[in-house]
Amino acid sequence: IHNNNLPLLREFLDTSSPREIADLLVSILPTQRTIIWELLSEPKKSEVIPWLRADIRPGLIEEMDDAQLFIAAETMDVDDLADVLGDFPDQVTQSIIEALETDNRKRLETVLSYPEGSAGRLMRTEVLSVRKDVTFSVVLRWLRRHEKLPSLTDALMVTDEEGYYLGKLELANIVTGSPETKVIDAMVGTAEAVRFDAEEHEVASLFEKRELISVAVTDADGKLCGRITVDDVVNVIRHEADQAFLKSGGVAQEEDLFSPIMPSARRRGVWLGINLITVFMAVWVIGLFEAALNQIVALAVLMPVTASMGGIAGNQTLTLIIRGQAMDQVSRLNALWLVRKELAVGALNGLVWAFLVAIVSLLWFKDTYLSLIIAIALFINLLVASLSGVLIPLTLKRMKIDPALSGAVILTTVTDVVGFLSFLGLASIFLL
Amino acid sequence: IHNNNLPLLREFLDTSSPREIADLLVSILPTQRTIIWELLSEPKKSEVIPWLRADIRPGLIEEMDDAQLFIAAETMDVDDLADVLGDFPDQVTQSIIEALETDNRKRLETVLSYPEGSAGRLMRTEVLSVRKDVTFSVVLRWLRRHEKLPSLTDALMVTDEEGYYLGKLELANIVTGSPETKVIDAMVGTAEAVRFDAEEHEVASLFEKRELISVAVTDADGKLCGRITVDDVVNVIRHEADQAFLKSGGVAQEEDLFSPIMPSARRRGVWLGINLITVFMAVWVIGLFEAALNQIVALAVLMPVTASMGGIAGNQTLTLIIRGQAMDQVSRLNALWLVRKELAVGALNGLVWAFLVAIVSLLWFKDTYLSLIIAIALFINLLVASLSGVLIPLTLKRMKIDPALSGAVILTTVTDVVGFLSFLGLASIFLL
Repeated sequence: IHNNNLPLLREFLDTSSPREIADLLVSILPTQRTIIWELLSEPKKSEVIPWLRADIRPGLIEEMDDAQLFIAAETMDVDDLADVLGDFPDQVTQSIIEALETDNRKRLETVLSYPEGSAGRLMRTEVLSVRKDVTFSVVLRWLRRHEKLPSLTDALMVTDEEGYYLGKLELANIVTGSPETKVIDAMVGTAEAVRFDAEEHEVASLFEKRELISVAVTDADGKLCGRITVDDVVNVIRHEADQAFLKSGGVAQEEDLFSPIMPSARRRGVWLGINLITVFMAVWVIGLFEAALNQIVALAVLMPVTASMGGIAGNQTLTLIIRGQAMDQVSRLNALWLVRKELAVGALNGLVWAFLVAIVSLLWFKDTYLSLIIAIALFINLLVASLSGVLIPLTLKRMKIDPALSGAVILTTVTDVVGFLSFLGLASIFLL
Repeated sequence: IHNNNLPLLREFLDTSSPREIADLLVSILPTQRTIIWELLSEPKKSEVIPWLRADIRPGLIEEMDDAQLFIAAETMDVDDLADVLGDFPDQVTQSIIEALETDNRKRLETVLSYPEGSAGRLMRTEVLSVRKDVTFSVVLRWLRRHEKLPSLTDALMVTDEEGYYLGKLELANIVTGSPETKVIDAMVGTAEAVRFDAEEHEVASLFEKRELISVAVTDADGKLCGRITVDDVVNVIRHEADQAFLKSGGVAQEEDLFSPIMPSARRRGVWLGINLITVFMAVWVIGLFEAALNQIVALAVLMPVTASMGGIAGNQTLTLIIRGQAMDQVSRLNALWLVRKELAVGALNGLVWAFLVAIVSLLWFKDTYLSLIIAIALFINLLVASLSGVLIPLTLKRMKIDPALSGAVILTTVTDVVGFLSFLGLASIFLL
């Protein structure tokens, strides 16, 4: 790409899988992205579209004209179409839906009716199901009529005459069983199904706990309506982890290395603005002690120490609690135990580092009282930090606010304010 | 548990799967953990051991006596044994290895010879393989001799007479193909295998790219020696993401909500100590400007603003770059483009927030020059923050240091120092 070697590039694009091309398109500069997109043939584009990451898809779809999009949509299966249709221009969407056969249109409309982030949206409607009372030889004869099974088919779903889900029959069982075995005797009747309205996160937990490759999805009545496969679950897990990491860095979820400058600046600016408010709260606290600062310049110099150490200690606790919450390890029942433990850790570290900070300050400013005061303030702030590190995420969670996003800001505000307040406050009481 | 309802607890433990019990054991207090462990029957304990998380396993194994451990080991398969053996006391390990049949002992020793975090350690040696020139009916007859296939068997591996890996034959193909089909005509010869020494991270990428359920593992010569299944890969992905999140919060990887107080305090103390050094670097910079602080108390009050805003902005950039690196999206080729983009974002936000900070300071301290100076200092620090946010992780990566762990500390030191230096420096030049 970087050498503008067009023939080589064309060859690469011709021989790569849609997924590989989609991966390439995310990891290059936006200008290069458009160039490469133009190089792709129309059929190739329609293959690549379902694989494109949601944030770059609209931009690339815009580059295509309506007729091309219509053709592309015709080659996609209903599940892929449901994923991408939201990014198509309205008039194209309309004509695509009208052009579908009644059967497919109904399937599409069903999938689109499920909310984003639900099992219904995650599932594929392409699912093989068999009746409970046939034998393996019948099943095998029926399977042999298929050219190919849907990808990641590890099992057939078993239903009764009315389509109610009964259990799962693994291919591994079919190949090891004798031809006379009946489906009902070999199926795993206890294999859970998820309801169409289950949350992605729950589905992912189920896959991890049970080590599944696929799971049946049912409607509210318990009728089989699709299946979810492990590849989509891996995406969910990856995405959740990615979000947690981005949030901890104060970056919005739509943000990307290659996002254009203006939207990037705007999104990150929001976070900077929030931080500015919290900084001014801390700074206002400092302002309360102008008199003290005016008389003892060492206070201004040492002031950041208590706030900064509190911020780090509090953030450590916060990180652990947030992770514990994500893994369902934190409840009201062990909250008190956690508070006590974190306070103990804070106190231990408080003692050690307060002592060290006192010594350094003593050597620097040769003022015993000042050193004592900064040590006490540091100790207090580490205790407050540990306490806040537990209580803030617990409170946010109960208020249904995501602690990963706002926890750190609130915590830093608390540790800044308490850090400045305890140090400057104690100093004005005892040193003035 | 919390009501000390023993009969109910016993019933729960009797009916739960080993995995569920292992999950329960991680999410309770250490004291409760020991109690529940005692309640488990010996056979149940041996089933649960392989599922235990690595950090709580040694503690629970200690509770068992040598004879019990020996019996537990006898019921495990070689792959599970390889995972847990490191936590057993030496004399038990010795007698377990001696008690194994030659065959199993050889397999165990092979697995243990692979380094931690390699494909060899991740793989299961339990793998079904067929010869390339037999027909499906032969394969089916052979499969039917199995009571049960190894879990997560989606495909058989195809080898030649000497055991060299040739390709993969999916169960889905076996059930759809006619009995006369030859393995060689139906197998996927292009299905990659990974070498025993491939890194976990590479293996996980391959699974995600190709949407695999299992992959063959070969030795250096290309002979089949095992397979890796998607459930282990999900664990790798989960673990990697978890590590990144913990590191970003300044918490060591062994740390856990329920770790005992002393080790917790010690591990987190290390991080606080590092932070103390960096804070004292910043504080030392402030100390250089004692004269200015002595004359204008507003400087001491406003001083944290520039440093804090720079820290946030830099951390946003850093987070994006670290994520980009994890996704292999950052290279020397686009580094310059990224620097320019981030500088532009930093400049835009710098303009907006410098303007706002100037207005607030003007209203507060009624000092035009002071407001101008804090605005300029903030702008400078946001530019430096953006630049450092790109360059620090790139440099660390080139030095083979993990940017997720140390990037934030270095960045904060830079933004603190530059924040204080630019504000106090400009002030002493222009205001004194």
